[in-house]
Amino acid sequence: MRSVYISGVGMTRFGKDPRPLVEIFCQAGQQALAASKEQDVEAIYIGVMNPEEFTGDSNIASQIAEALGLTGIPAVRLETASSAGVAAIQAGFQAIASGYYRRVLVLGGEKMTHLSTSATTRILAEVIDKQERQCGATMPALAAMITEKYRQKFRLSHSTLENMLCAVALKNHLNSSRNSLAQFQRAITREAYLASKFIATPLRLYDCSPITDGAAAVILTSEKTDVRLSGIGQGTGPVSLRERDVFTSFPATRIAAARAYQMAETSPQDIDFAEVHDAFTPFEIISTEDLGFFAPGKGGEAVIEGKTALEGPLPINPSGGLKARGHPVGASGLAQIVEATKRLRGQSQSKRQVKRGLTQSTGGLGTNNFVTILERADLPMVQSSGLPWSPPAAPGTAGKKTRSRSISDEGEIETFTIVYVTPDGFLPPLALALIRDRNGGLVMAQGEDTGHLKIGREVYLRRLDDSYLFTVKSQLQKVQESLKRLLRRSAASPAREERPVEEKP
Amino acid sequence: MRSVYISGVGMTRFGKDPRPLVEIFCQAGQQALAASKEQDVEAIYIGVMNPEEFTGDSNIASQIAEALGLTGIPAVRLETASSAGVAAIQAGFQAIASGYYRRVLVLGGEKMTHLSTSATTRILAEVIDKQERQCGATMPALAAMITEKYRQKFRLSHSTLENMLCAVALKNHLNSSRNSLAQFQRAITREAYLASKFIATPLRLYDCSPITDGAAAVILTSEKTDVRLSGIGQGTGPVSLRERDVFTSFPATRIAAARAYQMAETSPQDIDFAEVHDAFTPFEIISTEDLGFFAPGKGGEAVIEGKTALEGPLPINPSGGLKARGHPVGASGLAQIVEATKRLRGQSQSKRQVKRGLTQSTGGLGTNNFVTILERADLPMVQSSGLPWSPPAAPGTAGKKTRSRSISDEGEIETFTIVYVTPDGFLPPLALALIRDRNGGLVMAQGEDTGHLKIGREVYLRRLDDSYLFTVKSQLQKVQESLKRLLRRSAASPAREERPVEEKP
Repeated sequence: MRSVYISGVGMTRFGKDPRPLVEIFCQAGQQALAASKEQDVEAIYIGVMNPEEFTGDSNIASQIAEALGLTGIPAVRLETASSAGVAAIQAGFQAIASGYYRRVLVLGGEKMTHLSTSATTRILAEVIDKQERQCGATMPALAAMITEKYRQKFRLSHSTLENMLCAVALKNHLNSSRNSLAQFQRAITREAYLASKFIATPLRLYDCSPITDGAAAVILTSEKTDVRLSGIGQGTGPVSLRERDVFTSFPATRIAAARAYQMAETSPQDIDFAEVHDAFTPFEIISTEDLGFFAPGKGGEAVIEGKTALEGPLPINPSGGLKARGHPVGASGLAQIVEATKRLRGQSQSKRQVKRGLTQSTGGLGTNNFVTILERADLPMVQSSGLPWSPPAAPGTAGKKTRSRSISDEGEIETFTIVYVTPDGFLPPLALALIRDRNGGLVMAQGEDTGHLKIGREVYLRRLDDSYLFTVKSQLQKVQESLKRLLRRSAASPAREERPVEEKP
Repeated sequence: MRSVYISGVGMTRFGKDPRPLVEIFCQAGQQALAASKEQDVEAIYIGVMNPEEFTGDSNIASQIAEALGLTGIPAVRLETASSAGVAAIQAGFQAIASGYYRRVLVLGGEKMTHLSTSATTRILAEVIDKQERQCGATMPALAAMITEKYRQKFRLSHSTLENMLCAVALKNHLNSSRNSLAQFQRAITREAYLASKFIATPLRLYDCSPITDGAAAVILTSEKTDVRLSGIGQGTGPVSLRERDVFTSFPATRIAAARAYQMAETSPQDIDFAEVHDAFTPFEIISTEDLGFFAPGKGGEAVIEGKTALEGPLPINPSGGLKARGHPVGASGLAQIVEATKRLRGQSQSKRQVKRGLTQSTGGLGTNNFVTILERADLPMVQSSGLPWSPPAAPGTAGKKTRSRSISDEGEIETFTIVYVTPDGFLPPLALALIRDRNGGLVMAQGEDTGHLKIGREVYLRRLDDSYLFTVKSQLQKVQESLKRLLRRSAASPAREERPVEEKP
């Protein structure tokens, strides 16, 4: 495989951008072209998630080629939900590695701020499984349920979890305050974090990345430059929560990381810094565990201890991350690569020489993830210090569809959240829980009220149109049920065949 | 570059398909996997144009990986409007040619028939330039305007053009009547063609491809099989009609063909058959000229003379083409490759041994086009009989944006159509014309009435909200204007500086 290098990069100031989407793309593209030694590219690879619904733009690859004055040359659009920017890098990488092209322009972008928050939330929520959406689930709601499960699995108190999430938010805002292209240019305080309202418990406003417009651009080339794209990997995971058998890790990241580390012949301990997909603060913690930087359950402590701070041993999201640099979905994965390239080139506020960076991008709720490794091609690299990395054993990646399985009328809470910012048609506060029924199947359900929610609690479950409704059992109900079961068992004579009630004529 | 071969292929029966889009994709994919020697693939490349708006499916790559039981492996979606299926083949080709993957599943599909014709027409029309859409332009309307220009340029009478288009429709329906996967399974008569209603003059219902559901699948592999994907090329063209300086050819096809022929080290005269993008019958004629099979203006005669018939020297669209096999937009380009592979393998109704086939797919109105060349890898190939092919000189491919140029209030008709099937908000019959104004710029405009339309005729032009309105000048108006100009010229004294009227205080 031919080596692939990064030449010029470009990025718009993230935030609210009044220009049409195609113009935003063009600015980033022209910057990258202007920053490259050679300005002629043979093709354009474009990552964008949903211009059809966000801005009414179809046929966007041809539109962008024309607007850049490059009509004639090949242009394609790639999409893998919110990791589309890296999907475009991967396709461009493969095209150059094959020798089909020598130099390509890769673009990633999205325009979202012109719509209302509820319209944007609705479009973003389309990446979620339909049954879960019908219950009122949003991306923050599902992220919140994963967070609650993480808290329970690793036996963290509410306040310990809160401290961890707060530490991620504070660190990333501090980092973005030094990044002139970031959406948020100021640090936040612990008090401001704690005062911010809940979106879906335990996630507050400051745990969620903002709605953003922006674009990023990278020129990939077969000619040697100072930065080499030395590893790239991708993995997928189940779309719905109810098809998963692991909630506190994203197997798609582990698959992607295994390929990227193997290609780059390196290991987590050789990485100098990383840009990871912190669409929600807990996802930064989970990602650093999935990437092998910290043991499962230890990512939060690492943030609190300053290990991932800008001046720590392994800076995570030195640019501010999605959380504070902003998250124009199709741009984010590519923006990570732009930031990592700048950092390797020493254009960032780093005091240390850094030689090897990693980026990790997530599509949907961990359903289509990428990992890339970038390294200085002009500096002597230390031989990989560790053993070849293999991802920590993760319980299977599921993928078996249970659509037609019938759901029993009782079960217990696998995880839950209370949603305060609900999609149209759902009134807050909305209790949502993933329920494991008596047959071992999982289903998303709305709670009759928001009280008594806890992982493991027993519930009654009933169907309600396209959705499910759950009610937490009271202590009295549980005692009554045990009594009934006892009575039934003693009444059943072994000689008489017992028929279920519902089979009577 | 590593050679890339085709292993198993699959395709659903095209037409109305009641199943969800993801299930349609899965059927084609499972067929291709079942038909392959090796069933394990390392990645999935998916071409689909607009599942967001047609079926409300986002994050479709992850959805399809999961539905196929392949969760974990990389899956990406590609889009280049109606050529998306070949965009996916190209990305898969590059990935294998690079050595990054050894075997990938490529899918193309779309589901459209569940919506009303007007809703489908509206979604399809989103690939058109916005200004032209605001005048009421649809894909058939623009195709009709290109056809009228073709008629005028090559000095064809109305009835000669009609015979040519009819010959394409009859041939493709005859071919599809022998294709068990085609949407239309019966031949049509000349009488039926002539009795079919106008969609946009001169195009009738039988000149337009239908609305279709369907999916196609191809396994690409680095292991040698009997069919090699020996050439692939892509080109882009201006999105709007008004930015073009050539109307009777698609430069994007010529660019794509040049690359494909060069890669495959072959020429038009070595091609045994071709599947081309006949979304409209005139586009088949134009494509066979752009591909170098026939001289410009000679493609229509070739059809009438039977040169492109199934038993002719160069069968075009032996499968029935988009016109009669059906046109599920994201599937069509890949379906061409499936059909070509089957034909090369002798699974089709061919009596002759064929060794080399070509496919040509069009995105939008000729804005994002692909050409592929497939050949038998297990048969001795005759050395290319011709000189290396270079595309006939096409006048530049434009691409200079004229958005801000002001439009004068007079001009002449560059080309026109009368639209009988109009989008919502426009009443038929709707006269549409591309007007060349006095400054040489082009603009799309609606006619005040449908009379006196002819290429070259002079018109008045005025702005109407976001659109333009034109009125054909009468003979009397033209005489009056000449008179006025004469009078003005004689009144103007050379000693006195003439000031334009609008500059007076």
